[in-house]
Amino acid sequence: MIKGLTILGSTGSIGQNCLRVVKSLPGRFRVVALSAGKNLQLLAQQIVDFTPCLAVVCGDKYVEPLRQQLQALGYGQPVRIVSGVAGQAEAATLPEVDLVVSASHGVTGLVATYKAVLEGKQVGLANKEVLVVAGELVTRAAREGAIEILPIDSEHCAVHQCLRSGRRDEVRRLILTGSGGPFLKTSRRHFDAITPEQALKHPVWKMGGRVTIDSATLMNKGLEIIEAHWLFGLPPSQIDVLIHPESIIHSMIEFHDGSVMAQLSVPDMRVPIQYALTYPDRLAVDGDALGLDLLSARRLSFKKPDTKRFPCLGLAREALEQGGVMPCALNAADEVAVEAFLARRLKFPDIPRVIEKVLKETPRACAAGSIDDVLEADREARSRARELVSSSSF
Amino acid sequence: MIKGLTILGSTGSIGQNCLRVVKSLPGRFRVVALSAGKNLQLLAQQIVDFTPCLAVVCGDKYVEPLRQQLQALGYGQPVRIVSGVAGQAEAATLPEVDLVVSASHGVTGLVATYKAVLEGKQVGLANKEVLVVAGELVTRAAREGAIEILPIDSEHCAVHQCLRSGRRDEVRRLILTGSGGPFLKTSRRHFDAITPEQALKHPVWKMGGRVTIDSATLMNKGLEIIEAHWLFGLPPSQIDVLIHPESIIHSMIEFHDGSVMAQLSVPDMRVPIQYALTYPDRLAVDGDALGLDLLSARRLSFKKPDTKRFPCLGLAREALEQGGVMPCALNAADEVAVEAFLARRLKFPDIPRVIEKVLKETPRACAAGSIDDVLEADREARSRARELVSSSSF
Repeated sequence: MIKGLTILGSTGSIGQNCLRVVKSLPGRFRVVALSAGKNLQLLAQQIVDFTPCLAVVCGDKYVEPLRQQLQALGYGQPVRIVSGVAGQAEAATLPEVDLVVSASHGVTGLVATYKAVLEGKQVGLANKEVLVVAGELVTRAAREGAIEILPIDSEHCAVHQCLRSGRRDEVRRLILTGSGGPFLKTSRRHFDAITPEQALKHPVWKMGGRVTIDSATLMNKGLEIIEAHWLFGLPPSQIDVLIHPESIIHSMIEFHDGSVMAQLSVPDMRVPIQYALTYPDRLAVDGDALGLDLLSARRLSFKKPDTKRFPCLGLAREALEQGGVMPCALNAADEVAVEAFLARRLKFPDIPRVIEKVLKETPRACAAGSIDDVLEADREARSRARELVSSSSF
Repeated sequence: MIKGLTILGSTGSIGQNCLRVVKSLPGRFRVVALSAGKNLQLLAQQIVDFTPCLAVVCGDKYVEPLRQQLQALGYGQPVRIVSGVAGQAEAATLPEVDLVVSASHGVTGLVATYKAVLEGKQVGLANKEVLVVAGELVTRAAREGAIEILPIDSEHCAVHQCLRSGRRDEVRRLILTGSGGPFLKTSRRHFDAITPEQALKHPVWKMGGRVTIDSATLMNKGLEIIEAHWLFGLPPSQIDVLIHPESIIHSMIEFHDGSVMAQLSVPDMRVPIQYALTYPDRLAVDGDALGLDLLSARRLSFKKPDTKRFPCLGLAREALEQGGVMPCALNAADEVAVEAFLARRLKFPDIPRVIEKVLKETPRACAAGSIDDVLEADREARSRARELVSSSSF
């Protein structure tokens, strides 16, 4: 069977790798729709290469420029071009689509992804905010529709694979591993002086700006705890984080009989992408390109995360335990704080401070009962975070 | 459902651990029969503790002494006592038995284990010689009876668990790990001076004499390659060995999509024993007794095995590739050579020399088509190995 694919966020790092995987497995997939932001040049080239019937841009004003790009490339096939959230939602729910890869940044892909789940589409989830902000809603819809959400990130893909070796009720502990980021060994007293350039140098993964900074603050692992909670139905107390600087073991499951299952691979996003695209099958990768050489890896090491130097990890755990819209507020405040840090308007250690303040001012009892609740909480947390950033307190 | 158990080799290290596991999971198992060698005192105590209806000793002359031991312990329950290979076979095929733990040393348990498989009993296999000498026969019978043979050793149990994350035809490579034994770092020129006492000091596992020496020569990994070939249906070219001195990762499967699955646990035989006894379930282990602490494990390392210093690994691989009775001859010659080394009649580096000579003199075309073929080949190889040991060549 040829799987029909929609890729939300096709010009980002995950989207591009996703299309590389599609290209490497001829005859397996048909790209039905591509959705991107403002990188029209790359989107036009992807349309030429994969001939989708629908393309989505982020606003009306980009429709015509994309059309022109396609003309400039001499592209003559019919392609409908739509825009915005409604356009993304259409791309995610077209009848010929089997699997939606949700890889657009932030909460913009949330609505489209949620609609895809409601329509019974399988989802490959790279946009972890979808579960961070609306985990309960989205996973309930998936359960009701018997849809499996396949995680497209190395950690949760590892967990998904490890869980195949036993039942959910046999799990004692989920262990998310993380490289520890560029400041694993940096003393706290140097944190004030950290520049965006230093924070953007991730030791292992080449990723977008926000997720790279989130890796440096360990917020990334915090968001992954929340994502894991919703994906795998485990309480936060059963989800641990372990620093593993070599990034060879991508996560582990400890079963209650004492066996720990781990997934290892080269740190290349094509591994989890292909896993999600082809699940339940595993397809052979060309020419050992993704072969893991344990002999050159040599030594694998582990240490406890330092929650004093990296308070974001604790903040994320608290937000998850408090529930409701708290994780949504956490995510929104983090995004604003990270942007401010990148714009040199906040110092590195101010990122968790802004988030902590926003969380303190967010009403705990507020449920995330609908997408509107979530979007409202997101807006409020962002606005409060922006106020804090502009204020003299930092 | 309460599983009926027969334990062949109940007084050995595996047998004792097996009964510890049974005791730790009350209401799950009923011990139907116990079979042991000459340790009548321990066997009598086990009979008192687990009240089997049948006990097997290794020869007629031990029946009465066991009876007396039981009387001395004031044991009043009825227990039939039988002996020898026929007795073991009876214990392995009693109608109330669901699972036979095959843990008696050498090829003595072979006949009983084969009969258990023919009778449709599930087998927990700790006696790897069964598959080394008669892998084709035993696995064919298991396939025909749709019996799963569950390995009771840390490596193959790890492989069994890893394989649950994918299909057999998706496997690129099976990676058996080994500690490397006590002479991992010993220079070859010191090999002549190795004493049995030094060779019996295994860095990780406390095991019987032969298997400990086999670990020191790496023959153990060689036999495991053969066992893995039969258990998991993979050609020798897809089975690799990696030295991993910390013995935390017990083996791995590399799937052809680039994912490597690994099983980790404390090096305690209760983990694979319980896995085999309770499969397909995983039962909770009391009070974290078998919890793995990756933080204190700290560093995991890997290196290639040195087949120059440890020729047994290559000999085993060759025997498997040649097929027929060659693995049986390899096993028999190794057992004789190890005994001679322990009796100080051979030097450590003579062990592979004896085996190599025996293999050279074993007719390659000879098939292992029946248990009789196997027993005959075993006898011949032993007799030739004994001649070589007694001769002046060593």
